[in-house]
Amino acid sequence: MVFQDSDAAKWLEAVGYALAIFPDPELEKTADEVIDIIQKAQDKDGYLNTFFTIKDQDKRWTNLWEAHELYCAGHMLEAACAYYESTGKKTLLDIMTKNVEHMYSVFMDESSPKYNGIPGHPEVELALMKLYTLTGMKESLELAKHFVDKRGIQPSYFEYEQTQRNWWVWGMGPVDTLYHQGNVLLREANEAVGHAVRAVYLYTGMAEVAAQTNDKELKEACKRLWDNITKKRMYITGGIGSTNNGEAFTVDYDLPNDTCYCETCASCGLLFFGSRMLEMEVDRKYSDIMEKAFYNTVLAGMQKDGKKFFYVNPLEVIPGIGGTAVTHRHIKPQRPSWYACACCPPNISRLVSSFAKYAYGENKNTVFCHLYASGTIKFDNGIILKCSTEYPYGFTIEYNIESASENNYLAVRIPSWSKDWNITKNDVKIGTNKFKFENGYIYFPIVKGDKIVIELSSEPYIVYPSPKIPDLSGQIAVCRGPIVYCAEGVDNKEEITGLFISKNTGLYKVQELEDGIVTIVVPGVRQENTEDLYLAQEPNFIEEKILMRPYYSWGNRGLTQMKIWFPLNK
Amino acid sequence: MVFQDSDAAKWLEAVGYALAIFPDPELEKTADEVIDIIQKAQDKDGYLNTFFTIKDQDKRWTNLWEAHELYCAGHMLEAACAYYESTGKKTLLDIMTKNVEHMYSVFMDESSPKYNGIPGHPEVELALMKLYTLTGMKESLELAKHFVDKRGIQPSYFEYEQTQRNWWVWGMGPVDTLYHQGNVLLREANEAVGHAVRAVYLYTGMAEVAAQTNDKELKEACKRLWDNITKKRMYITGGIGSTNNGEAFTVDYDLPNDTCYCETCASCGLLFFGSRMLEMEVDRKYSDIMEKAFYNTVLAGMQKDGKKFFYVNPLEVIPGIGGTAVTHRHIKPQRPSWYACACCPPNISRLVSSFAKYAYGENKNTVFCHLYASGTIKFDNGIILKCSTEYPYGFTIEYNIESASENNYLAVRIPSWSKDWNITKNDVKIGTNKFKFENGYIYFPIVKGDKIVIELSSEPYIVYPSPKIPDLSGQIAVCRGPIVYCAEGVDNKEEITGLFISKNTGLYKVQELEDGIVTIVVPGVRQENTEDLYLAQEPNFIEEKILMRPYYSWGNRGLTQMKIWFPLNK
Repeated sequence: MVFQDSDAAKWLEAVGYALAIFPDPELEKTADEVIDIIQKAQDKDGYLNTFFTIKDQDKRWTNLWEAHELYCAGHMLEAACAYYESTGKKTLLDIMTKNVEHMYSVFMDESSPKYNGIPGHPEVELALMKLYTLTGMKESLELAKHFVDKRGIQPSYFEYEQTQRNWWVWGMGPVDTLYHQGNVLLREANEAVGHAVRAVYLYTGMAEVAAQTNDKELKEACKRLWDNITKKRMYITGGIGSTNNGEAFTVDYDLPNDTCYCETCASCGLLFFGSRMLEMEVDRKYSDIMEKAFYNTVLAGMQKDGKKFFYVNPLEVIPGIGGTAVTHRHIKPQRPSWYACACCPPNISRLVSSFAKYAYGENKNTVFCHLYASGTIKFDNGIILKCSTEYPYGFTIEYNIESASENNYLAVRIPSWSKDWNITKNDVKIGTNKFKFENGYIYFPIVKGDKIVIELSSEPYIVYPSPKIPDLSGQIAVCRGPIVYCAEGVDNKEEITGLFISKNTGLYKVQELEDGIVTIVVPGVRQENTEDLYLAQEPNFIEEKILMRPYYSWGNRGLTQMKIWFPLNK
Repeated sequence: MVFQDSDAAKWLEAVGYALAIFPDPELEKTADEVIDIIQKAQDKDGYLNTFFTIKDQDKRWTNLWEAHELYCAGHMLEAACAYYESTGKKTLLDIMTKNVEHMYSVFMDESSPKYNGIPGHPEVELALMKLYTLTGMKESLELAKHFVDKRGIQPSYFEYEQTQRNWWVWGMGPVDTLYHQGNVLLREANEAVGHAVRAVYLYTGMAEVAAQTNDKELKEACKRLWDNITKKRMYITGGIGSTNNGEAFTVDYDLPNDTCYCETCASCGLLFFGSRMLEMEVDRKYSDIMEKAFYNTVLAGMQKDGKKFFYVNPLEVIPGIGGTAVTHRHIKPQRPSWYACACCPPNISRLVSSFAKYAYGENKNTVFCHLYASGTIKFDNGIILKCSTEYPYGFTIEYNIESASENNYLAVRIPSWSKDWNITKNDVKIGTNKFKFENGYIYFPIVKGDKIVIELSSEPYIVYPSPKIPDLSGQIAVCRGPIVYCAEGVDNKEEITGLFISKNTGLYKVQELEDGIVTIVVPGVRQENTEDLYLAQEPNFIEEKILMRPYYSWGNRGLTQMKIWFPLNK
């Protein structure tokens, strides 16, 4: 596959993050050896891509539309930054700096037609911004900004490119400008379109360019895109991409549960995008969604033992239909071991191993706790804090301030799903209006030795969909904390399509299973089966206790039904 | 288009039926002129197909897979039978008898590879059976039976055929045996598969072969196929075909409302199939469905003024999604004026103009009233009856026996949707157990002068879907008589996706509009819109009176939302 250099790159990036948390000389040695091989593969001019170097050097940069050269470069660049950050070793960073210089020479030369070239699969934009942030390399920023600005110019560069070559990777047809977000200049974009992974990778780079160049127009476009995704085109699981046709966004409020795409990578990308938006404005409208995408779609992408993976994360699978009907063949009812296109598994690795990067932020005098996770964090601004929590199953989060200076603040997100919450500071209960509460974050003045404890709501709650989503008409979902719950056939007599659930959450019973998974028993009814397809009289309904479990844990016990949304039994 | 001879054929067939009801010398003259042209187009050996005769005579019968020659012959054969029956004119019948002799020589020659050939688009089977019934021509029966018996033999004839030619109509790929019902020998078939129109046309011919040859094994297969369709793969509207991918059946219980196909022609074909099953066994399980398909999908296929047509008959259209999303482009939110493939409009014409053929049946001493329609009918067995009714909006059906002999019976269907019914014979109310009531039909002994009046239930009723249909989870539909009701945006504030309906039919208000359409006002609630896609607290519900109208009348007032199934507001 033309994009397989990226698999090695994402593995290296994950290794970089992992080594920062758990030093492992054996692993580091392997990574160093891989980097040595990469060094040998680099051409003298800085070009680096094994597919073209081995197969056909003359075809370099002649098929930006399909060939993923910039995509692979982007992933290797991210690996270089991560590996340098954790190990201090510069080899890969030097390789990639040289590679960026090469790309700069190819794409920033105004006299070349390639000056109008853009990545067919966006990714390098966000990676170039990482290099800029790490090293201050101006060419890297310029190139990222250039790719962002060039996208959407009509006619598409890809149409020109097609006329200049006689080879194809997949023989794709006429250029669909929506597919690669080339339908409109990005700073004028209002709607998230096309291939969902490409979209959110692109918007991540775009947001970082906006942040670092203080480009208000671009920032506003990013905000419109974020709102369009999260208020009109996203699943309750933080999944995005409503169709397998182009693995893409479709239109507002088109959110089918059983034929969606919801690629694991796309939800990783949504997290990346959200984290860049948080740099520009601290608002839980970003971090709430990041949390939703992480604990639901991203984690569902991997089997419990870490050995099998979902690419597509459906919200409903009924074996016999899901995976079988011609419209549902992309829906796998069970996690396959691997994929020819193995983009998702290493995306989970690198995201899980760099969770802290998304959980925290900082500025000169404040640290921001966007997501909750135990650990001790040393910030560049000098603040050191220790966080202790059993989140997402425990709802108490304790922060111990181990180092802080004058005028330092701790800003903690209160998630919008938490109906109420309690705060204690140094064991004294505090009214919620005592401190600044802005855009969902509470700002605590801190000094060394402070202990701040947040207690969030631990009760299961019901989520109602917008009445504008046709596919969810009359349905409700059960959640607890950030976790979306589902029912599986194996727990519910293999007949979950006839279940209705009660909205009386007071009767819901939260229980912990042996394997640490918290389930919820929900009262409801089951419509009795009959032979007829349509009944002109009221069928029988039987009372049932419905066992629901976290969506991320579904599909770990063989072929079975699964469903998140259920009709309401009042 | 390769199949356009069939458009002329279906028009001629409809003219034949129309002339039997309303004599019209002008129309008959036009039809005679068309038949003269057809006569001139026939080759000396009996071959008749303008596409190949004009374009390339050498390619005759070399692409049964795509070229529709047998399909066109079948439709012309049906026209010949209809035109002869109503006018007594034999020209077209002679042309087609010669054509059948030609086809017999091509396909019944055991020494030819074409002996294994079958129609890519079934239709000629049922037409050959019509000719046999009308004229007793044995070759016609033999050829029909041959085509039925040959289907499903592996490897497919079409694979062989592909190796023998170097031309294509559409360049279709590898033969998908499901698409043309070639996956299994028909007498072993358990599931209705593939292109829905092809399927029901084929099953119609198959049932007629089974009936006329008294082939019990084939009859059992027909019954299994009927049950599979009507108990697992059919919409409440009598629509069939769950996907536009192959315009096809998919799998059991996969019945999406908004991405279905539900071609008008397929529901016409379901009626044809049902009527042939009724010849073998009188049971309302056939006629109830025929009625459902006719009053809902078939009639919805045509605009109120008869000038525009639906090909695809969705059960839900939300403009912005329906017709727009890549998965919904085959769904037209409004009836187009015409289609490049104009199979559906003349199918409605020929079905409506031959309604009596489906409404009635007879044997030696009994007439069967399967469907209700005013008119006087003279049966071959000598019985003459007059039926008076305003059905489907009036629920009183009066039969006056104008002629009958000893031991004559009138068998009238009582539809399964009618909760109760009243019978009077010669103005005396009669208990329902007074006469034989078998498979949904009441058998009245009759003599000349008898007056039998049936009163069916006129109350609106709620239909519950099988709990096995995932897409209808928690939804209900409103019906009255055979008519399925829908709500349109134009009557309901253009926000019908947030509506819930009450199941208390006692509060439903039936009202007649000026244009003769009976609407129902249904109490319900509307979920208020909010900006969020998912709400962690209960939204507001506002009481509403929901105006519902017959599904067949939808889409006559510009672009608007439409939906049949609604969640229940208890």
